[in-house]
Amino acid sequence: MSGSHIVATYELAVPARTTPAARAREIAVEQTVEIPEDCLAAAIEERIVGRVEALAALPDGRHRAVVSYPVRNVGAHFTQLVNLLYGNISMHRGIRLAAVEWPAEVLARFPGPAFGVAGVRELVRVPRRPLVCAAIKPLGLTVAELARDAAAFAAGGADLVKDDHSLDEQEDLAPFRERVARCQEAVERTKAARGGRSLYLPNLTGSPGDLPARVAWVRSLGIRGVVVSPLLLGFEAVRWVAEGGALAVLGHPTFSGAFFGDEHGIAPEVLLGQLFRLAGCDGVIFVNAGGRFDWSEERCLAIAGALRAPLGPIRPAFPVPAGGVQVARVPGWVARYGPDTMVLIGGSFYQQGDLERATAELIATLERP
Amino acid sequence: MSGSHIVATYELAVPARTTPAARAREIAVEQTVEIPEDCLAAAIEERIVGRVEALAALPDGRHRAVVSYPVRNVGAHFTQLVNLLYGNISMHRGIRLAAVEWPAEVLARFPGPAFGVAGVRELVRVPRRPLVCAAIKPLGLTVAELARDAAAFAAGGADLVKDDHSLDEQEDLAPFRERVARCQEAVERTKAARGGRSLYLPNLTGSPGDLPARVAWVRSLGIRGVVVSPLLLGFEAVRWVAEGGALAVLGHPTFSGAFFGDEHGIAPEVLLGQLFRLAGCDGVIFVNAGGRFDWSEERCLAIAGALRAPLGPIRPAFPVPAGGVQVARVPGWVARYGPDTMVLIGGSFYQQGDLERATAELIATLERP
Repeated sequence: MSGSHIVATYELAVPARTTPAARAREIAVEQTVEIPEDCLAAAIEERIVGRVEALAALPDGRHRAVVSYPVRNVGAHFTQLVNLLYGNISMHRGIRLAAVEWPAEVLARFPGPAFGVAGVRELVRVPRRPLVCAAIKPLGLTVAELARDAAAFAAGGADLVKDDHSLDEQEDLAPFRERVARCQEAVERTKAARGGRSLYLPNLTGSPGDLPARVAWVRSLGIRGVVVSPLLLGFEAVRWVAEGGALAVLGHPTFSGAFFGDEHGIAPEVLLGQLFRLAGCDGVIFVNAGGRFDWSEERCLAIAGALRAPLGPIRPAFPVPAGGVQVARVPGWVARYGPDTMVLIGGSFYQQGDLERATAELIATLERP
Repeated sequence: MSGSHIVATYELAVPARTTPAARAREIAVEQTVEIPEDCLAAAIEERIVGRVEALAALPDGRHRAVVSYPVRNVGAHFTQLVNLLYGNISMHRGIRLAAVEWPAEVLARFPGPAFGVAGVRELVRVPRRPLVCAAIKPLGLTVAELARDAAAFAAGGADLVKDDHSLDEQEDLAPFRERVARCQEAVERTKAARGGRSLYLPNLTGSPGDLPARVAWVRSLGIRGVVVSPLLLGFEAVRWVAEGGALAVLGHPTFSGAFFGDEHGIAPEVLLGQLFRLAGCDGVIFVNAGGRFDWSEERCLAIAGALRAPLGPIRPAFPVPAGGVQVARVPGWVARYGPDTMVLIGGSFYQQGDLERATAELIATLERP
């Protein structure tokens, strides 16, 4: 296959009415031209339609199909990249996108994280150890309470302090502009008084009608990063934030879990590890094994591996294990994930009561040689 | 339950490690505050946390849980509405959002379709019969070829003529601005010469950085509607397009299918029938039973029913069966779906070769009393 193809590997549970080869061909046609075979001109077949490159039986009775798509199917928008890989076929059953090979042409088109692991480390001035991101929560606190907690985490030395992704634009609770201004001010005031490097990352939501103004305003406050939820905000919006180049992007996996079926959907290391990264996430949150969610360690390690694997000119991104990580278990997780990891901790800090001390103790643990 | 709650019904496959009641409570907490029970202040519990209202065993061993969420959890953005209903819990297994009851407060906040069934009928000046939407395709045709096909469909009297959702911003094939201008011009020229009412709907994609300019430009051409893919573009972007009030919105289901598991995800009639409608889609495309996809007629009728069901002040939207609808079978489908249906046809027109005649014949069939 030439470098001008994007190569997708699918695992297929082939329905009784068809054959593995016919099913693979269906995918190649559906994802590109969506027209009956008898309407397909030779020139379109040659230039546009996906090609089934390989087909093999899997031990469990399913099949593995490798389909290559000419890169010209992908346009300037990330939406069509995702649509090409897993758009209409999501509406079949038993088709799982298991892996993607990325040609240089696509990697050049979607530049990925603006900061990456090294850039985020520079932002927080921590060259080597794992990073700690603290979550202020929950929704329902007043703005003053959220700002108080943000300041406590900053005082404790958290590298990053983030909003919960549910903190959005609830007017009668903690409206966006007031919350963000006060939390940022609280973190900066703490740093000015006591030193430290914490960065506050607000949760960014909005429409094409207000996002440009929101991003400009966030930047005007001196904020250097945001939390985004690609499945809710849209991949193209995430790419746009990242390409602005001024804000580090922490991707949240909310609404992504329906894709992670055993036999249907997208492999977590592809969706969270590759697509989130390629869309521009400098760090990607996922729910860690042993926490509130039943994800396996193997899955988590695969995501972390994909986020940091070589991918042409695309910068590596931080894996961000979350979802019930206990402070006491951080050293063990860090040993498994390696130092280029950002642990995201909320509940386990709150359970200790004194946020500043709990944070400071974890940072001290991680700084010990 | 007071009207100030949004009420979600989930079907649960309860893991062995827990109980149905504990699992339901997990959902109510995870979707709102995401903090450990021992950190939960009474005031937050009262004002924010979801409440398990009912729990019952299902015949298949799963359970049905009804959870009510205080409306103040939902903010001004559609993203948080979706996040509240099925955000983090998507990353569990065996949780299916089966139904939602919408309080007036939420329906007032998200006004839904700007046109709805009646408004789209006025746009195309067809008061009673089912509508026909023709799809120009495939990706890979030149702009001139796409415009030629759009003109042929308009000459045949198609009520609407739409881009495939894969027609995006492929620079070397059919770039957005050139394609849209030429297709719109071709349709309008045909109408001027021969009469007719066809509206051309381009596929709209983009980022917050270019969507506002694209929408303004599309409107400047006299275009009255667009195709959007909510799962790719983002719900909030769809809402923003709809609230502009000038463009009818045809929602495409690409990338949605991973949500439609039997035991995990979101019921199609909730995601496509309610959330797409509430986000502002005047018509919602779904893959029809008996076509290229294995969807049951029951599922399709449930989606169609939800799109047109009474929902406070929210306008009904057109169900748009698609995905391999054969022209010969349209009368049968229309008999099942009823007259307030828009059939979307691409391949079956192209298979007949003469697009104008094929379209005219179908329209004539539908106009027969």
